[in-house]
Amino acid sequence: MPPRSPLAPHTPTDLPAVAGARLATAASAIKYRGRDDLCLLAFEPGTAVAGVFTRSSTAAAPVAFCRANLKGGRARAILVNAGNANAFTGRRGVASVERSATAAAAALGCRRREVFIASTGVIGEPLQDEKIAAKLPELVRGLAPMGWRAAAAAIMTTDTFPKLATRRARIGDATVTLNGIAKGSGMIAPNMATLLAFAVTDAKIPAAILQALLRRAADRSFNATTVDGDTSTNDTLLLCATGRGPRHAVPRSAGDPALRDFRAKLDELMIDLACQVVRDGEGAQKFITVNVAGAASRRAARRIALAIANSPLVKTAIAGADANWGRIVMAIGKAGEKIDPRRLSIAIGGTVIVAKGERVSGYDEAPVARHMRGREIGIDVDVAVGRARATVWTCDLTHGYIDINADYRS
Amino acid sequence: MPPRSPLAPHTPTDLPAVAGARLATAASAIKYRGRDDLCLLAFEPGTAVAGVFTRSSTAAAPVAFCRANLKGGRARAILVNAGNANAFTGRRGVASVERSATAAAAALGCRRREVFIASTGVIGEPLQDEKIAAKLPELVRGLAPMGWRAAAAAIMTTDTFPKLATRRARIGDATVTLNGIAKGSGMIAPNMATLLAFAVTDAKIPAAILQALLRRAADRSFNATTVDGDTSTNDTLLLCATGRGPRHAVPRSAGDPALRDFRAKLDELMIDLACQVVRDGEGAQKFITVNVAGAASRRAARRIALAIANSPLVKTAIAGADANWGRIVMAIGKAGEKIDPRRLSIAIGGTVIVAKGERVSGYDEAPVARHMRGREIGIDVDVAVGRARATVWTCDLTHGYIDINADYRS
Repeated sequence: MPPRSPLAPHTPTDLPAVAGARLATAASAIKYRGRDDLCLLAFEPGTAVAGVFTRSSTAAAPVAFCRANLKGGRARAILVNAGNANAFTGRRGVASVERSATAAAAALGCRRREVFIASTGVIGEPLQDEKIAAKLPELVRGLAPMGWRAAAAAIMTTDTFPKLATRRARIGDATVTLNGIAKGSGMIAPNMATLLAFAVTDAKIPAAILQALLRRAADRSFNATTVDGDTSTNDTLLLCATGRGPRHAVPRSAGDPALRDFRAKLDELMIDLACQVVRDGEGAQKFITVNVAGAASRRAARRIALAIANSPLVKTAIAGADANWGRIVMAIGKAGEKIDPRRLSIAIGGTVIVAKGERVSGYDEAPVARHMRGREIGIDVDVAVGRARATVWTCDLTHGYIDINADYRS
Repeated sequence: MPPRSPLAPHTPTDLPAVAGARLATAASAIKYRGRDDLCLLAFEPGTAVAGVFTRSSTAAAPVAFCRANLKGGRARAILVNAGNANAFTGRRGVASVERSATAAAAALGCRRREVFIASTGVIGEPLQDEKIAAKLPELVRGLAPMGWRAAAAAIMTTDTFPKLATRRARIGDATVTLNGIAKGSGMIAPNMATLLAFAVTDAKIPAAILQALLRRAADRSFNATTVDGDTSTNDTLLLCATGRGPRHAVPRSAGDPALRDFRAKLDELMIDLACQVVRDGEGAQKFITVNVAGAASRRAARRIALAIANSPLVKTAIAGADANWGRIVMAIGKAGEKIDPRRLSIAIGGTVIVAKGERVSGYDEAPVARHMRGREIGIDVDVAVGRARATVWTCDLTHGYIDINADYRS
């Protein structure tokens, strides 16, 4: 087991309770020994749900199940297991999800279409779902408003620290709570970032509006992060709104002015969780923020930023604390987006290296080299053809990544 | 300096002479010490030339120069330097290429538009072209029909072995010769594979036809290989036809039936060189052939094969000799192409692991594990929606890649 990432942020020992939500963890022993690997989130009736999933064409059975249930817009439970992704398991995998959902619905006294299932771990191995069902009574008995950190820990696979975040937001005169947990370390790339993440609020927001808010937040957070450019079969991001918090007027649209603060805090929460995932990127020793400005469109800016963030040569240079800005030039070039090479500028750690398409005269590498030896690396690029910008977060590519992935099977 | 790649093939100590072509090498000492780093290929008047270049939007100054000269369709010289890419060097870089070409034209008594320049090495450093010009008299004096291996060695950067290949082809009753040299090890991905490659034949083929033949061959070879998915600023592939070999009828089109054998041998030569580059992929310990069949189009097949070949998780699993076929499923899924997950099949080393979208019953990992411990890895995928196929070649992702790139600057 690799040591805790040196980039792990300080996170609270627990999150505040969210009215209408309870949670519990248990140990199924499907794969891991001596740790919890199941997490159940249970919600009061009337809870709205929104979801964003992997775009993989080999999406796992639980993803298909959640997509179907999302149409109802209601959630009473999210059941998560770590250690087996139940991906590419054919008809047996589908049956397995259905049995788990049936068991959860029975244990909680709700309908199966109000149950959401998420799995993470090894692909292609049949899931011993009977071990999950066997633990449902224990999980239901254990449901409590607290224990978010334990829940975040129970869903980990190669993660080295649990990922959790909380925010408070104003809707009208009411202050609502937003909690989130996430897992993810490898197979992390947009569409969406390869991970599981579950957020819960006690605000009262209809499912359709919740979906619009979540899609926007996911685009600004998980879809703007990458560890290795690989996309999981199991990416699942769910947002539930119990409506059991302080009373407020029910918003009428995603653009409702009353939601301004909520939107901002939801974006913040998701960026917080997404960056925690990057900070736990397999083998990561440095956290990298890539800002691209001056692009022809937001999409172009994002693509250029991702080309830099996904380049193995850029990532290894940063791992080696090498201010090899030529590799950034290479990555910009390979993105295939419109740029003006004669007006391009590049800065690392705030020090301008390239301006007007050439290395600045009298360039002094010393401050850049100092910055490169730190844990937090900033790359700023201006491609000088427009006004659109994008930010992408990633980590370096190190021996640790090879260590973990050249013999890890989970 | 890393040791010679364990995947290096046996190559001849020299190639046969090609009538109408001579070559020489020299040491400029621009970057390297104690080795040749300049190569001059010189051709008799009337030599036709074709070229394919990087699609990078930050292409280097010599690439722009070659593109312009290619319009003339004639080549008298190719001048190559290793150690400095003359990329992203602004107006100074452009002037530098022009001075080198002027010096070469003067030394050989030809026109500057018949001179082609290629550079490889560090990006963004001004090129001391006066050191190249100073060596031109020595290079011209040294021109000889043999010395192909030395030429291949002179253009190396992080390469661990020189890359060269030769073929003979029939055009009508004549047997012509095709020689090629290449360099490349990192920044290797299609559009085109990041490298320099120069091929010469003594056949008589007009430039327009040569261009069509080269484009086709590049697509089947260099554009079907990847080491790290990064695309260089300097990719240059040139093919020259001196017309000084055995007499044959001049072909009238690229599809001329008389060119059938030549086309096949040109493709073979280019695939040979491209695979040598992959075999020298930075840190490579295993050579991987990915075959995708059953795709909706050739383009889709290629994209799926590249998604597998570029996946860090697939490449590290292979480095660890881990038959982790779930990562292949993941990579297929992220390609975003049409597939039928319920009919998908996957084989490794000829052993079928997945059939009809599920792991085969009674799957025995032993023969696959044995295959994975070898040097040559074969992955066969059928996505079951059409009849198109593609092959892509790549290598594994190892600690060696990190070693080389986390502190290499060249």
